[in-house]
Amino acid sequence: MRALVLERKGELRLRDIDLPQDPGPDDVRIKVHTVGICGSDVHYYTHGAIGDYVVRAPMVLGHEGSGIIEAVGQNVQGLAVGDRVCMEPGIPDLSSRASKLGIYNVDPAVSFWATPPVHGILTSHVIHPAAFTYKLPRSVSFAEGAMVEPFAVGMHAAARARITPGDVAVVIGAGTIGIMVALAALAGGCSRVIISDISDAKLKIAAQYDGIIPVNPKTDDLVSAVNRETGNWGADVAFEASGAPQVFETIFKTVRPGGAVVLVGLPPKAVELDVNAAIAREVRIETVFRYANVFDRALALIASGRVNLKPLITRSYGFDQSIEAFKRAAEGRPADIKLQILMTPEVT
Amino acid sequence: MRALVLERKGELRLRDIDLPQDPGPDDVRIKVHTVGICGSDVHYYTHGAIGDYVVRAPMVLGHEGSGIIEAVGQNVQGLAVGDRVCMEPGIPDLSSRASKLGIYNVDPAVSFWATPPVHGILTSHVIHPAAFTYKLPRSVSFAEGAMVEPFAVGMHAAARARITPGDVAVVIGAGTIGIMVALAALAGGCSRVIISDISDAKLKIAAQYDGIIPVNPKTDDLVSAVNRETGNWGADVAFEASGAPQVFETIFKTVRPGGAVVLVGLPPKAVELDVNAAIAREVRIETVFRYANVFDRALALIASGRVNLKPLITRSYGFDQSIEAFKRAAEGRPADIKLQILMTPEVT
Amino acid sequence: MRALVLERKGELRLRDIDLPQDPGPDDVRIKVHTVGICGSDVHYYTHGAIGDYVVRAPMVLGHEGSGIIEAVGQNVQGLAVGDRVCMEPGIPDLSSRASKLGIYNVDPAVSFWATPPVHGILTSHVIHPAAFTYKLPRSVSFAEGAMVEPFAVGMHAAARARITPGDVAVVIGAGTIGIMVALAALAGGCSRVIISDISDAKLKIAAQYDGIIPVNPKTDDLVSAVNRETGNWGADVAFEASGAPQVFETIFKTVRPGGAVVLVGLPPKAVELDVNAAIAREVRIETVFRYANVFDRALALIASGRVNLKPLITRSYGFDQSIEAFKRAAEGRPADIKLQILMTPEVT
Amino acid sequence: MRALVLERKGELRLRDIDLPQDPGPDDVRIKVHTVGICGSDVHYYTHGAIGDYVVRAPMVLGHEGSGIIEAVGQNVQGLAVGDRVCMEPGIPDLSSRASKLGIYNVDPAVSFWATPPVHGILTSHVIHPAAFTYKLPRSVSFAEGAMVEPFAVGMHAAARARITPGDVAVVIGAGTIGIMVALAALAGGCSRVIISDISDAKLKIAAQYDGIIPVNPKTDDLVSAVNRETGNWGADVAFEASGAPQVFETIFKTVRPGGAVVLVGLPPKAVELDVNAAIAREVRIETVFRYANVFDRALALIASGRVNLKPLITRSYGFDQSIEAFKRAAEGRPADIKLQILMTPEVT
Repeated sequence: MRALVLERKGELRLRDIDLPQDPGPDDVRIKVHTVGICGSDVHYYTHGAIGDYVVRAPMVLGHEGSGIIEAVGQNVQGLAVGDRVCMEPGIPDLSSRASKLGIYNVDPAVSFWATPPVHGILTSHVIHPAAFTYKLPRSVSFAEGAMVEPFAVGMHAAARARITPGDVAVVIGAGTIGIMVALAALAGGCSRVIISDISDAKLKIAAQYDGIIPVNPKTDDLVSAVNRETGNWGADVAFEASGAPQVFETIFKTVRPGGAVVLVGLPPKAVELDVNAAIAREVRIETVFRYANVFDRALALIASGRVNLKPLITRSYGFDQSIEAFKRAAEGRPADIKLQILMTPEVT
Repeated sequence: MRALVLERKGELRLRDIDLPQDPGPDDVRIKVHTVGICGSDVHYYTHGAIGDYVVRAPMVLGHEGSGIIEAVGQNVQGLAVGDRVCMEPGIPDLSSRASKLGIYNVDPAVSFWATPPVHGILTSHVIHPAAFTYKLPRSVSFAEGAMVEPFAVGMHAAARARITPGDVAVVIGAGTIGIMVALAALAGGCSRVIISDISDAKLKIAAQYDGIIPVNPKTDDLVSAVNRETGNWGADVAFEASGAPQVFETIFKTVRPGGAVVLVGLPPKAVELDVNAAIAREVRIETVFRYANVFDRALALIASGRVNLKPLITRSYGFDQSIEAFKRAAEGRPADIKLQILMTPEVT
Repeated sequence: MRALVLERKGELRLRDIDLPQDPGPDDVRIKVHTVGICGSDVHYYTHGAIGDYVVRAPMVLGHEGSGIIEAVGQNVQGLAVGDRVCMEPGIPDLSSRASKLGIYNVDPAVSFWATPPVHGILTSHVIHPAAFTYKLPRSVSFAEGAMVEPFAVGMHAAARARITPGDVAVVIGAGTIGIMVALAALAGGCSRVIISDISDAKLKIAAQYDGIIPVNPKTDDLVSAVNRETGNWGADVAFEASGAPQVFETIFKTVRPGGAVVLVGLPPKAVELDVNAAIAREVRIETVFRYANVFDRALALIASGRVNLKPLITRSYGFDQSIEAFKRAAEGRPADIKLQILMTPEVT
Repeated sequence: MRALVLERKGELRLRDIDLPQDPGPDDVRIKVHTVGICGSDVHYYTHGAIGDYVVRAPMVLGHEGSGIIEAVGQNVQGLAVGDRVCMEPGIPDLSSRASKLGIYNVDPAVSFWATPPVHGILTSHVIHPAAFTYKLPRSVSFAEGAMVEPFAVGMHAAARARITPGDVAVVIGAGTIGIMVALAALAGGCSRVIISDISDAKLKIAAQYDGIIPVNPKTDDLVSAVNRETGNWGADVAFEASGAPQVFETIFKTVRPGGAVVLVGLPPKAVELDVNAAIAREVRIETVFRYANVFDRALALIASGRVNLKPLITRSYGFDQSIEAFKRAAEGRPADIKLQILMTPEVT
């Protein structure tokens, strides 16, 4: 099977590789159709590691995917050959203590695509448990299907926030995840979202959505902007989606007494946190690690038209151009939200 | 002060009545602008009582209102003469045990407009606590302001449901409250709402909104329709907004394992409930009594354009025509959603 | 293997039966030590069916068990031969939608011991998934281990109630499950529990625990008793553990505004429910179907001494006397709480 | 009225002072009986300020009190002259947005005893709203009544933790508040509490309670101890009650995947927080600011005997010795938990 292989830090090759072909009894085999490039894929490419996860052997990249079912294991129900699907890339041990609790995303035994040493899906086929494979509603394209994974992070953040209908939210960071969080927050009940970023290009993309109010802290103080929007009461919930350490100095001042702060972004190191400011407002702080139980909900919102991810797909590349696509992704152009690789362009 | 007075069951008069004129230190005086007619107003008119609340003395009707502030008490902050506002009609004892818990709606001492023996607001002015008076955002009209009260019931129901973004909801009953609940559920995070009513006229009004799927149980089985829409899994939440006793026979079969049922409608008597069906799916059942802490959230959603209540205002009457308006409301025409009375037509 | 077999309604036999012997890779084989007799076992014996579950073929009874691990499958970690354990008798499909959500108890595919056509454990050995087998802390006896299953129902009810520390609870019904619920409610944060039953014998057993206040509605009105205990405010939570239909007439009047009612008992038919009384107090109603994720918590409370189940074990029988034990259980003596059968008396 | 007045930093005097005498319509006048000395009282005495709260004028100290009602305002119900009571020292604006939400503790307008410029209660009488005055059950002494305030902090922390029955908790810090939190956690449903402190004297006092397991991190690694106690799973909830900045380095490693960390202690400055460690386990972090809606629950648990605070009262002083009492409190003897001042020794 031909695949995009990260041979080692900085070295990508399109080459053949041996990968499993036969689905187990609870698995399906999926012909991969579209794969989005995630910041983590790029980071493995440019740095060879994320935290404790180090690329020590050639690894296929890619974990944001959609495709077509080609074969189903004998126990599989509800999925059939030919079904258009998207895939949840983390596979937990379903009998673990965390999984039994419904929080399988934090099962320590989770195996996650394109996280060393597990191969990703920038290849022609993949074997995957049926339980983590989701049928695309007719109105959802393969391109949108490959957007479900990053949107799922936003969905999970919105779920953890426990939004009350009509809440006002702040989202710090207007990168891919920040925008996903903002869209999920709006779809999840917020009346409006104040999004903050130091890139006007990113803010412009975010602000094309109704209900998103852009703030550039280089020219406008975020806390003041929130106070203006909320009559000095504060936002009901603030999502941290930038990972920028300096954000933690003021984030608690953006929320109302009894509000919530949801931490999504991973800062590069320990951050200075004003615990007393959090306590003075009795803020609830939630953290978000990937997602659990949201792919079906994400698809429902996309299919209903309540969430439109299409404007976020900046450009598609053919599989043959995938190294070029990664090089562009590594540039980090401000107006690039999502680059995708089209593995099976003949099917639409 | 001139008022629409329910003299006794079946007898309405437009006449002068003595009502308080001077705001206390924490109150405001409001010139009433628009008042919606609620089913409860009509019920007092036609039946003289609702449950234990019996009209024993002449009572001014009306509790869904907007207006303009004319005077403010000495302690009042955040509201000023000339402000356009809407009013929350229940006044609790703020020092009660329930109020301290944040559930002031169930404070046994609550005093509620147009609930015997408390006068309503179909009159020129009203004194009201500033704490229960809400400024209308610029983009919200007086007519919409007078819709906040019924919408608040839907908002409170949606809040109690604890919707997870992307949920599928069922709403039983497409009367005013049913539609309010459906709109709040959609704005509050649902991907779509299946609404059920035996009136095609009402379903047609509901179905003009994106995301609302009408089902008439006279021609289509509701449980089957839900199963079709949800791949036999069931809805995440079902709202009962009809008060029809027979609904309780099947409502639990419309929700998924672990789903929620939210009871909003008041049935005319005790109902037969299949407790075992609820237990078999481990359904959570929430009940809704009016609302608390939702007027500001409701206004935020209306102002943002995420909820559009204008199509639900069937017709407006002048104050002089208010008895005619009540007569029409008493007819219960299927396509009538909300009739309003315009008290101050010279201001828009 | 020798087993206690329900041949058909009313006919029990101790005889040999063929049952699986070899654990799968994720299973353990357990030598059964102690088995409690549950009301459902007795009901199958006396009635041949519970609801839709009908005994159509010989079935081994028993699902409340403890034992000793005799063999472990190749994937099993954390359990070893010789471990003293108790067993969670329902086995869900771990890859189902409900299981992924953490509510595996309501997975429609659950297979549950001694529920037709699934065999129970009144036999020498049983094969069981390691994921549903729990090690007994050193201080917990086999007899107590066999009590974990019924106590788990109480634990699950207490968890669903979402007790706030210091809550006052009402438990209706002082049978085995009622007492289990009361003990779990106390251990789970209640300051005191008012328990109601028409049997003074049962109340006497319940009242031996500190914090449990007995009320016999034949001589004392329950609502009045609750008002006395709570200064007319009402209990924070009421648990229905009797299944008696007439209880539903007044249960909502035992709780405070904003309180909770938790339905555990299965009434024999649909019940008349005063929905308006529930709505007037905005009661939250939770339902309880068996349990999920509580065996480890139950064991922790028993091991710590915070819950003492020993006084509830009325009498133990040898395996040879198990038919006699069932006959006594079928008598329903008021002072009998739990009868147990000792399968492996030589080990203690 | 004679009072213990903090004239300025470091200078205490027992002298006469003019304070209000007449209860308003919703107030009561209380003859003060017992007052506990809190760390904050001592801090104002020794440092003249806590954060932004600076002693700029003479201030009466003391906010942990019990007493006897001497007079009641005309609107007061449920309290009468002669009633034995304890008092919640923070008085919010009941009509504020926070109060309406039930989180009156974070109302920015709260007025709190012995927090500049508000006088405390180390004096003969005090006027207080009836809504924040709680009757002592017969079995609760004045000394225990004066312990309700610090215990309320523990109760509120336990409530915010949302303990599931049987949880294992960690409490960091075995000072007064740490022990209060540990006792509330146990009463609130935990099976056991691992408490950590560097003072063996404090650990010894904590460990006299069943279910509290002491760990001194100077001789035993806390994370290892937690892993030992929980089979390497981690605690369900960790309470930070020390305010020690270095604690924040490891606190997330003491909890299980999906666990909670509750921040009670106020660190002297911003702390370094390993956000990634929190995210990797998807920890929920709650913060605690004083308390709301817990005095009645605290009293219920004390009255029931489920919580015994008496062993924590180290010594009582007469009002005449109150300066001596403060001097001892300022010494910070490790084995001193609570020192109290007896204002009305003739009544018991």
